This record gives sequence, structure tokens and C-alpha cells, in this order.
Amino acid sequence: MIQITVIQIDNYGPWTVTPQPRRESDLQALQARLYADLNLMFGMHKGLVFYTRFDNLIAITNGIDLLTHQKIQDSIKNRYPITISMAIASSKTPYKAQKLATKKLQEHGSAQDEGRREVLDVANELVMDGYVQLAHIDINNITERLTDLESAYDTYINVNKVKLMLMEELKKYDAMLFFIGGDNFMCPCNGMSEDDFLSVFEKIKEKCGVELKAGIGIGKTAEDASNLADIGLELIRAGKTGRQVCTLKQEGCEILSPLQKRQIITD
Amino acid sequence: MIQITVIQIDNYGPWTVTPQPRRESDLQALQARLYADLNLMFGMHKGLVFYTRFDNLIAITNGIDLLTHQKIQDSIKNRYPITISMAIASSKTPYKAQKLATKKLQEHGSAQDEGRREVLDVANELVMDGYVQLAHIDINNITERLTDLESAYDTYINVNKVKLMLMEELKKYDAMLFFIGGDNFMCPCNGMSEDDFLSVFEKIKEKCGVELKAGIGIGKTAEDASNLADIGLELIRAGKTGRQVCTLKQEGCEILSPLQKRQIITD
Amino acid sequence: MIQITVIQIDNYGPWTVTPQPRRESDLQALQARLYADLNLMFGMHKGLVFYTRFDNLIAITNGIDLLTHQKIQDSIKNRYPITISMAIASSKTPYKAQKLATKKLQEHGSAQDEGRREVLDVANELVMDGYVQLAHIDINNITERLTDLESAYDTYINVNKVKLMLMEELKKYDAMLFFIGGDNFMCPCNGMSEDDFLSVFEKIKEKCGVELKAGIGIGKTAEDASNLADIGLELIRAGKTGRQVCTLKQEGCEILSPLQKRQIITD
Amino acid sequence: MIQITVIQIDNYGPWTVTPQPRRESDLQALQARLYADLNLMFGMHKGLVFYTRFDNLIAITNGIDLLTHQKIQDSIKNRYPITISMAIASSKTPYKAQKLATKKLQEHGSAQDEGRREVLDVANELVMDGYVQLAHIDINNITERLTDLESAYDTYINVNKVKLMLMEELKKYDAMLFFIGGDNFMCPCNGMSEDDFLSVFEKIKEKCGVELKAGIGIGKTAEDASNLADIGLELIRAGKTGRQVCTLKQEGCEILSPLQKRQIITD
Repeated sequence: MIQITVIQIDNYGPWTVTPQPRRESDLQALQARLYADLNLMFGMHKGLVFYTRFDNLIAITNGIDLLTHQKIQDSIKNRYPITISMAIASSKTPYKAQKLATKKLQEHGSAQDEGRREVLDVANELVMDGYVQLAHIDINNITERLTDLESAYDTYINVNKVKLMLMEELKKYDAMLFFIGGDNFMCPCNGMSEDDFLSVFEKIKEKCGVELKAGIGIGKTAEDASNLADIGLELIRAGKTGRQVCTLKQEGCEILSPLQKRQIITD
Repeated sequence: MIQITVIQIDNYGPWTVTPQPRRESDLQALQARLYADLNLMFGMHKGLVFYTRFDNLIAITNGIDLLTHQKIQDSIKNRYPITISMAIASSKTPYKAQKLATKKLQEHGSAQDEGRREVLDVANELVMDGYVQLAHIDINNITERLTDLESAYDTYINVNKVKLMLMEELKKYDAMLFFIGGDNFMCPCNGMSEDDFLSVFEKIKEKCGVELKAGIGIGKTAEDASNLADIGLELIRAGKTGRQVCTLKQEGCEILSPLQKRQIITD
Repeated sequence: MIQITVIQIDNYGPWTVTPQPRRESDLQALQARLYADLNLMFGMHKGLVFYTRFDNLIAITNGIDLLTHQKIQDSIKNRYPITISMAIASSKTPYKAQKLATKKLQEHGSAQDEGRREVLDVANELVMDGYVQLAHIDINNITERLTDLESAYDTYINVNKVKLMLMEELKKYDAMLFFIGGDNFMCPCNGMSEDDFLSVFEKIKEKCGVELKAGIGIGKTAEDASNLADIGLELIRAGKTGRQVCTLKQEGCEILSPLQKRQIITD
Repeated sequence: MIQITVIQIDNYGPWTVTPQPRRESDLQALQARLYADLNLMFGMHKGLVFYTRFDNLIAITNGIDLLTHQKIQDSIKNRYPITISMAIASSKTPYKAQKLATKKLQEHGSAQDEGRREVLDVANELVMDGYVQLAHIDINNITERLTDLESAYDTYINVNKVKLMLMEELKKYDAMLFFIGGDNFMCPCNGMSEDDFLSVFEKIKEKCGVELKAGIGIGKTAEDASNLADIGLELIRAGKTGRQVCTLKQEGCEILSPLQKRQIITD
């Protein structure tokens, strides 16, 4: 089971143009800092946040209780001109968990409902003995192939193409995909096997010639999983693995075996 | 003429994994704050920065001189564990300007060259009497159609699809497209006409059913243009314009008439 | 027992002038953000940090373990151009605890020792069942008496005079005193009684005519104690207490009184 | 002529306890970041801000016009839950300038007047051809004498004692004194001579045995003066000056000679 928190700025759109449109560089700074702070605060409890649409963010929060969520919600209210609402849900797959969380949030009213402020609710239950599976994916040799050759914007378009292809392929496995800078993507992927990833990578290589690799980490929290995924990626880079995926699992982390997983998940 | 600055973190990839992979929530906070700070600092001189790939950023910097760039470069070195390199270029279109700037930066060595640090160079010349044309594009009724109905991640995928389609269509006009949060995009588009935008929007509507609108601002600086684009968008939202585009121009801003522009640009 | 962490930027002085003096506004921003981040990160675990000399900070860290300290130390290294060392100690009084912590830090070398980096050590033991006693002190009617009448700088001098007097008087009780903005001071004061504070306030009133009041909170962590101290101060402001001190204690918080002050506290 | 801006958070005290006291670590983070941001934004235009009481700040703003002040005021409103008011004044001495600025601000209402928000006013006139004189003062051998020997808190008390003595002595010269971290003080001191400083330092040495030195910079802006003061201090540290003060002046900066200044100022 993975625990996902959907975070939404309350009534943000209208605020950005009231009483008149606010300076764009200020809004960009505001949104970026909100994202940074959420990562620092959830990060202090081993969570991980993705910026998504900046006014709607998605976080992996295994092991983080309701009180800690409330504390973070308060801290944002105390230091920002806006407030946030949050809904938490857990499920066997990341996609399903965020879907449940979003639904719970939507029950409280529209994102642009003036009366809806600082919702904090749980869709089903907080995860006690779950695990997080994260794949840290990157593009092979992007610096030599793109960054140092193509224009900054063309490289950016390329990365966006790969990103969208990955999003669409991985959704078939109920996994999500987030860009984390450079040529790096982070993919919450409870239930996926190494072969699933190799199959996805093969498809993308066929479509656009880009080769990918992934360190996969399985841990009790987003931080544990992310650290292991990073190490897995380093092992691939160092040529210490036979193939372009490498899974590392935290000790004591009870999960079903990778080979069995797909069947079960796709039930 | 529009002035573009390409910003690159020096040798960032290797740093993130030395001596071992750094915690992801810290890296996300670092990158987001760098982006926020660059917007605040360039913003104080009427510039505007886009996060792009976070380790490679693109800024509109009309009216911002070399000394100010250097001051910003120093300030990052003084407050961050990393340094940045920057190259500035100007051209009739945003795409060409960033291409020139990237090329100038690449001449100084690879993004992952250990010896290349804090480059600051100008490809051709700083713009004295140019202008910035910015389109602030958003998706019609996204809150009702997506945010309040679909899951957070599905809405996100949708926005990413629209983004990539816009990037590809707008590149044909030598324009760039950046996501700025929610359902909003900012498009540096010197040389494009309102009809060009309507034509792009029509294509996207046919492809995926999404309807778009755009306030277009023309001003001496990114801030001026962005403010006008915002007001244009508000006018469309208020039903005060006959169509889904609305252009506002800063007084004293010398540009060629919209009707004539396309011909010249496409030479 | 109160647990204190002494935090020190490693070899900071020399860094600020290498290779030449760094811009002062950058250094002020750097130091202020370090302070803000430390408060956010320790705050997520119910700690509280005081800026003290900015390159040497003092934190109350009851309930915060070594791993969390290490995580914060790493996070600073990952996002700042400087690193920090920390030593933790516990004692019956705040002054003694910081003294032990400082001594432990000094054993590892000078603050300006190039080789000493990221020390993390514990002087005696981490507090398991201790408590934090905090007094939130403010100046009566400062807005009417000073802020709205005197010049900004004269009010500032006045606040500094009161601060130094408080520091000197409170040290006699092994308490510390930190300025937290406006006319507010926060005083870690395990072992002091309400009468002790009234006696200190009387002395200061005689010396310079300034009248003070204090909400005193006793809790398991700095956050708990601080919240209770705030509520105590509000009760005094609302005229709900007979005198200028008001102590509130968290349920289940077992304390002993060094000098028989227990009776007074629990009255 | 030096230009001073007095900055005040609007109605801050009541906000911090509405509807109930806000968490102290959040408030400390908020205040510290406001200070950092003001330094970054004024710093981009060569100004320098001192934190003073955090809710009341003092800035040196020679060369910074009203529009830039307004932009900073807007940026704070766009990114913080609070707003700021500002009054600008100029005078021959720093003390007089802040006094005029404070008076102008007070004319608009109390710091805790609910109706007073985002005041921006000028007491007399903005400085066009003035200069800033800044002394960067530090304590001789503090690391060896205090930081590495005494407890963190005792060193802090010592620095506070020296600070208050300096404040009181320097006020006689219409100069101000701000702590900038470590053992460093920044003193806006238009009109003071090197002998004045030596005389002040002598008094303090007699009173408490602490020896001080000062680099003095004279420049068109706070940044220029501060940079020169830093270099002056480095020259003293390197033993390149005969005495414990060293003045450097920016070329083209028209001021009266140091020896003549005192007479004129004290008119």
C-alpha cells in the first residue's frame, strides 16, 4: 500500500488576478517556494512532493500522520498569502491512491469555491505497514547527445516528449511519472516489475530513439525508496548491472515478489 | 528584438551524486528556490525567468545589462552550493535568440565540464530599443471540466498533452512555450500575429477538443509585456473582446504592425 | 531536564571574505534563510531555534534524536554553500545545557579550524522524559509608548537596553534570553518560579521604568511550552490574571523544582 | 546626504495572535525570510537592510526611487500573509534621516491601526547626489578570546554588551549601529571622522576591555560603501594600516574632507 496526499491551493486562480493581475515573477517565486517548503517539511518526515501543476501538488506520504499534515497546513497559512487543502488516500497502486484522494477533496467543493478553505481529510485509511516503490529514470547520455549540442529549448522539447510518452505508458501500470529536473523523472510504481520497465523503455526507444534506464527502490517511506532508487541508478551508470534496471529493497520491507506482483495488481 | 538569457547550473548532475546521491527532497527544494530567487532578482529589473529543466533555465532579459547579470551570478554563488553560467543573445524571435545564447554557452565547454564555472558571455549584442511580445495562454473552463471532475494526475496529463502540442505548433513560428502553473502557459512570441494564435488554437481544438485563449502583451520589458498580456486575458474572460485573443501594446513601444509581421519573420 | 543544541557554521568568518569580501546584502540573506530553515526543520519536530549571533545559534531540542539532527545537517550541506556543526547537551537548566554543548563542540576544534567540518556530537545524553519551560516576555504598551512616538532607531535602542538587562538578570537563574522580534523575548527558564520573574521585572522597572509581563509555558517540547507561554501571555493581556505572570503546564509533564520552586509552579 | 527607508509590518502584533497565537518557529521563519527578501530586492538596487526589530526595519536606500520601493512593497504583498508600510527620508546624518522617516510614517497612523496599510511616503526628498558612509566594525580576536573559550551564550552576552555600548556612543555622532552576525556591526555614519571612531573605541576598551577596529567606506550607494568598508577592514586585518581604522572612498563621490566634517555636522 502506498499513501498519497493531494495538495491544492484554495481558490488560487481568482486570487492571482484580484484586485488585478499580480506580477508574474512574484507568482513564480511564490509557487516555487511553496513547493520547496512542502518538500522540506514533508521531507523532514521522509515524504516527497512533486510540483505537478504548482497549484495542485502530489505527495508520497507513507508514515506521515494526520497531525503532521495539519502542522504543515498551518505553517503554510502562517507564512503565505494563500492556504492549502489536502486529502490523503492509500491504495495498492499510486494512480489509484491519488484518484481516491482527489475524489475526497472534490467532495468538499470546487478548487475555486470561496467557502472551501483548509480542508484536511482522509479517503480511506493511513498506511501503517505499506511500502513505497519508486523508479528514478533518466535519459542515457543526454549531456553529450542533447544539452551540449542542441539549443536549450530543443533539448527541453525533447525531454517533454519523453516525459509525455512515459506518462502515457506508465499509466497503463497504474504508475505516475513526475519530472524532477535535468533529464530525471521520478515514478511511484508500486506493483511494477523490472520487466515492465524494460518493456516501457523498449517502446519509447522504438518511438523516438531515446534510451532510458531506471534505478528502482523499495522502502518503507518515499525517502527510503528514493535513496535506494538513486543507488540503483548509480550501479547501472557504473556498469555493475547487466541491464538498464536495478532494484534495491530496504530490509524488513515486506512486499510481494516482483515476478508475482503484476498478476496480483492487475486483478 | 528580444533578449534571452540561457542559464545553466555548472556541472550539476555530478554534484547531485557526489560523494553519494543527495536526498531528493533537498534537491527539489534547492532547484525550486534557485528558480524563485532568479525570478525575484531578474524581476527586480523587469525580467522574467522560466524553470524549463531547473538546471537549464531560460529568461527574458530585455533592458538588463551585463553588470546586473554578473551581480545575480555572484549572489547565487554567495548563497548556494552551486554556481551558474549564463549567455545572453538577442534576435527577432525568441527561439533564435535562445539558440544563439545556447551556442555561445556551449563554446565555453560542456555543461558537465569540471573546469567551466561561472561563464558570463554575450552572443551578439544587448537589446537597447527592442520589445518583448508575450502571450499568456490558458485553457477554457479547466476547473469545471477537469480539476473538479478528473483525478489530479489525469488533469496533469491533460495539461501536459496540451503543453506539448502548443510547444510543437508554436515552434513553427519561432516562439517558445513555458508552463507557469495551473492551466497557464507563457509564450514569448515576437513576430506572431493574433491570427497565428487563432490558427494554432484551432489545430489543438481539432486534435484534442481543448479550447484555448490568449492575452498578448507587447512591451519594452518582460514585465511590461506580461502585465499587458494578463490584462488582455482578463478582458477576454470578461467577454469584452470579440474573440479568444486580445493584444495590448505599451505606449512608445516601436514595433511593426501585426499584419506585416508574419511576412518579415518568415523570410 | 532541557535539551539544548548549539549550532555553529563551520569556518564561516574566513569564507565571507574569500577570495574577497562577499556582498553584505547576500550574506544577510544567507544567514537569515539559514535561520528560517533551521526553525522550519527543527520546528517540524517541535524544536525552536534562536538566531543568537547568526553564525552561532542555540536551539531547544527536547524529543529530537540524533538521526534528525544529522538529517538537518545534511539538508544544510545540500542547499547552502556552508556547512554546520552541532553539539547537543542536556541539563537541569538551559544555561548549563548550552555550556556543556559548547564545550563538547570546542573539543572538536576551533570555529575557524579549516579541518573541522560537520561535527555532530552529544555531551551527555539526549533527554527522554524531560520538559521545557519557556517564558514569553513582552513590554507593556510599547506601541503607544514607543513605536508610535519615538523614532524607529530610538525604540530599537530601548528594546536593546531592556534585552541586555533581562539577559543579565536572568542569567542569575541559569536562564537564557533571546529576542524574537517587536518587543518580544523568549526565555528558556527551567527551574524558575513566577516570583523569580516578578522580582526580575521589578528590578528592571526600577532601573528604566519599563514594565514587563510573561506567559510561562511548561511542556514536553519547545513547541508545546511556547504555545502555552503564548496563551498565558494572552490571558494576562485580557486581564484574566491577577498579576503580570501566568504559568500553564502541559498535562502529563512531570517536572521537579531545583530550589523548591515546584510548589509555586504547581499552585 | 544619506537616504533612509523605515519599513514597518502593518498591524503585525495583532496578526500574530489571531485567531490564536501562531507557532513561534513559523513566525521566526516568516520574519527571517522577509528580512532576507528585502535585502535581496533592495540589494538588487544597491541598498542594504538591517533587521532591527524584524517588524520594524531600517534600510539605506540612496539611489533607489519611489517606483522601486512600490515594486518591493507589492512583491511582499504578493508573497506574504502580511503587508508593509514604508517612509523615506534624507538628511546629513543617518540618525536624523530615520527620525524624519519614522515621523512621516507615524503621521499615517499607528503601527497597530487596522486601517493603515501599505503606506508609501517620502518625508522630504529622495537623494540624487548624496553619499553613504558605512563603518564595518568588528571585535579583535573574538574567536580566540571568546568563541573557542566561553560558552555560546556567554559570548553572545558579551557581543550584546559591546553592541549596546556602541549604540549609545555612536548616537552622540548621529550614527546608527546594527549587528550583522558573528562579531560584526555595520554603522551608517555620514559625518563621522576616523578620529571619532578611535575615540569611541577607546572608551569601550576602557569600559570593558574589548578592542575594536573599523573599515570605513564612502560610496554613492550602500553597496558601494559596504564593499569599501569590507576592503578597509581586510587591510587592517592584514596589518597594512597604521591604526585600527581605514577609510576608502569611491571615486567621484563628492564629500567634505573627514577633518572638516565634524564641525559641519554638529552645526
